[in-house]
Amino acid sequence: MKDWKGINVKVVIKVIGFLLVIEGVFMLAGMPFSLYYNDHKGMSLLYSGLITMLTGGILWFSTRKNPKSIGRKEGYVIVAITWIIISLFGTLPFLISGVISNFTDAFFETMSGFTTTGATILTDIESVPKGILFWRSMTHWIGGMGIIVFTVAVLPILGIGGMQLYAAEMPGVTKDKLHPRITATAKRLWAIYLIITFAETIFLLFGGMSLFDALCHTFGTVATGGFSTRNESIAAFSPYIQYVIVFFMILAGTNFTLHYFALHGQLRKVWKNEEFRYFIYLILGGTIIITLVLALSKSGMPFEEAFRNSIFQVVSIITTTGYITDNYLLWPNMIWFLILLMMFIGGMAGSTGGGIKVVRQLLLLKNSMLELKRLIHPQAIIPVRMNGKVVSQDIIFKVMAFFLIYIFIFIIGSTVMALIGLDGPSAIGAAAATIGNIGPGIGSVGPVDNYSFIPSGGKWFLSFLMLLGRLELFTVLILFSPAFWKK
Amino acid sequence: MKDWKGINVKVVIKVIGFLLVIEGVFMLAGMPFSLYYNDHKGMSLLYSGLITMLTGGILWFSTRKNPKSIGRKEGYVIVAITWIIISLFGTLPFLISGVISNFTDAFFETMSGFTTTGATILTDIESVPKGILFWRSMTHWIGGMGIIVFTVAVLPILGIGGMQLYAAEMPGVTKDKLHPRITATAKRLWAIYLIITFAETIFLLFGGMSLFDALCHTFGTVATGGFSTRNESIAAFSPYIQYVIVFFMILAGTNFTLHYFALHGQLRKVWKNEEFRYFIYLILGGTIIITLVLALSKSGMPFEEAFRNSIFQVVSIITTTGYITDNYLLWPNMIWFLILLMMFIGGMAGSTGGGIKVVRQLLLLKNSMLELKRLIHPQAIIPVRMNGKVVSQDIIFKVMAFFLIYIFIFIIGSTVMALIGLDGPSAIGAAAATIGNIGPGIGSVGPVDNYSFIPSGGKWFLSFLMLLGRLELFTVLILFSPAFWKK
Repeated sequence: MKDWKGINVKVVIKVIGFLLVIEGVFMLAGMPFSLYYNDHKGMSLLYSGLITMLTGGILWFSTRKNPKSIGRKEGYVIVAITWIIISLFGTLPFLISGVISNFTDAFFETMSGFTTTGATILTDIESVPKGILFWRSMTHWIGGMGIIVFTVAVLPILGIGGMQLYAAEMPGVTKDKLHPRITATAKRLWAIYLIITFAETIFLLFGGMSLFDALCHTFGTVATGGFSTRNESIAAFSPYIQYVIVFFMILAGTNFTLHYFALHGQLRKVWKNEEFRYFIYLILGGTIIITLVLALSKSGMPFEEAFRNSIFQVVSIITTTGYITDNYLLWPNMIWFLILLMMFIGGMAGSTGGGIKVVRQLLLLKNSMLELKRLIHPQAIIPVRMNGKVVSQDIIFKVMAFFLIYIFIFIIGSTVMALIGLDGPSAIGAAAATIGNIGPGIGSVGPVDNYSFIPSGGKWFLSFLMLLGRLELFTVLILFSPAFWKK
Repeated sequence: MKDWKGINVKVVIKVIGFLLVIEGVFMLAGMPFSLYYNDHKGMSLLYSGLITMLTGGILWFSTRKNPKSIGRKEGYVIVAITWIIISLFGTLPFLISGVISNFTDAFFETMSGFTTTGATILTDIESVPKGILFWRSMTHWIGGMGIIVFTVAVLPILGIGGMQLYAAEMPGVTKDKLHPRITATAKRLWAIYLIITFAETIFLLFGGMSLFDALCHTFGTVATGGFSTRNESIAAFSPYIQYVIVFFMILAGTNFTLHYFALHGQLRKVWKNEEFRYFIYLILGGTIIITLVLALSKSGMPFEEAFRNSIFQVVSIITTTGYITDNYLLWPNMIWFLILLMMFIGGMAGSTGGGIKVVRQLLLLKNSMLELKRLIHPQAIIPVRMNGKVVSQDIIFKVMAFFLIYIFIFIIGSTVMALIGLDGPSAIGAAAATIGNIGPGIGSVGPVDNYSFIPSGGKWFLSFLMLLGRLELFTVLILFSPAFWKK
């Protein structure tokens, strides 16, 4: 057991044990709300937390010494297995409280939470006890925290899909091993995460939300998750609150290393970042087009309302949050396709957002333009540049491969959903919304619908897509490769 | 004028003049049918033919000597400009006869013909005079002839999207210039084209078709075009005829160099070709799934009918022909997505089929699988192999770039169609069906619909997409690059 197929199993168990203890502690965090709202589910949270902490503790103490370092191979295993085990234990509050009686549904909901997807099987959210709803939103927040460390500190080392790029300037990131200095990086990033969380909570409280609603919606925003405490999602709140959430969704979809620079007064560095500018232009472009369509269409909305709904929905989908202020499937025809398209953009690399990520698209766009130049001058070497620096052919190649595999998995996903019996747009919508970690899709899994009607097999499959998308595909796929398991 | 921006204008004019003369001759070919069916449109064909031949002759004789060789740059210009000019003159029979009174519509129909797309703006095909219908189908046949020379002889030299691959073994193809030996290659390929045309006509006549119908449908098949002489398309004919057309659509979607080998008895070489096997597997896979769905669904078709409709529609769409035996949009939900997916496959490279092409997808699939291996062994060089030979990284890179640009143009195309006012599925369907040179799409441009309702601007845009798709994107895009026009 000590060394199985080249993997230091002790290290893996120790890390997972540690994370389970933390998860258990977080489960208890909903208890005050259970007591305050007197929903009689405080004990379910307590039991869930104790079971989780106990299991984690046993795993932790079953291995003696602290691991000195974690290798590439352990890195892959830990990342994928952790997300699954954390989700398994995360179902406890739902199951013990009886809020969700079906294990498949509970796993779908929890995986959707931890992957910050926000796809739900609940049909009447407002009838769910507050303590359980708090745990549901908390899974987003924990997932967001995990993903920041994963994308900024772990991914560049694993060398996946060209993600070396954005981390290049981040202090504390080393190239070969999961170095202790990662701890320092993680602490910095978490400090930023906490600051943003705190700030949004204050702004929401200021808008008249209860502390419970403010925290839950903050968790859903900063993690780009999308779980709400209301059946109507954000449509249930005031325009002020909607604008606040738009602002914080943008922050959550931005590379956290840029926040680090911004907090250190290096604003010029932020705006000089090509990915950031492209991200902002995409949001502005989408908002302007949809605002005009909504305001000018026959059923014309008042301009402010059209603008607010447009920017909210554009930001919500591009950042892969998935909050809703209006049923966009009822908007004029042409918007349907733009919404579908935006589901593939995703946040910036190193943000809590999912999807393909802005930086990859920007690189591919630049490379496509240059491909024509290369045809005209077949002998010349014409490299892609990003933020003024040459990007190696190798990284472009990896980014292309990532994009293709993403599209490939999206196609398989849509096909599976179609074979399960979903109509075309719904099949596409369900696959795009889960692999992109968005939540609501189009068709019968649209903004005012949910995933409860999908058969069990489909829910497990979609849970798998959420995990694939969240962990940048390769981290999960590599575990299916026989070559990986050779010593 | 002799040498403009590095382009030998004389050569371009001479080639176009020559091709116009040929086009004019072909226009006259419909006259016998005009006379036989007494449709009073023979004179329209005569006038159109004379105008075209005269213009071509003037261009031809305006430049004295024969060009010795044609360079890369002239190659690009000639290919794109030719297709446009030929289409412009090709509208004459429609306009002079008054069958299509609107220039936009006539251009759309003609471009659709020459690019072997088969998208139509005609609402009642059977009311169109026979002589004009013959010209309409003839545009397919001429386009198919052109595209074979283009893809097998010209493209590999222009170095576009990794198309060097399939031509490697074809005798007569050289690498640097449009060498005179191309003439020999072209002659061989045209001989095959003529043999297939002749064979299908015989088989169709044998099934009871009139000579007129047999020729028109043969033209539509061997060019993977899709124009029919009937409103119901191939549903108007017997099962025998439907099977014959299936067989010849497969031949037309196969790399013509493989036919060359087959005709020389080298059948082993054909089956050893990986692209061919993958092409056949795709057809079989699609057919089996759709047959089962059709036969087992509640409205269950008899098995033979389900099989026939399935294989017909699968082959018709994969080869980008676009003939129809049944309204596939009325088939069970899940098929909708499969149909959409198949619209992106396309025929084999070096066939008359459009789309992305099977060889490119096979390469990308192989490369994606290997990408995981490369992550596990970051130091190892793991190349893609095709037909037992190593494919250079450079070609994989070009194929990836092609795929990305294809998807990118598809997205722009869908967006434009959505902004014009088409609903989502129709916008996607129109873009996919034109850039892939298929013809019928999904939604409101589905198999029993047509493109007449699309506003003029949209028709011009879709005509442009047809041309882009037909000429493998780069040949057209490169003309929009400022770098191309620098000396």
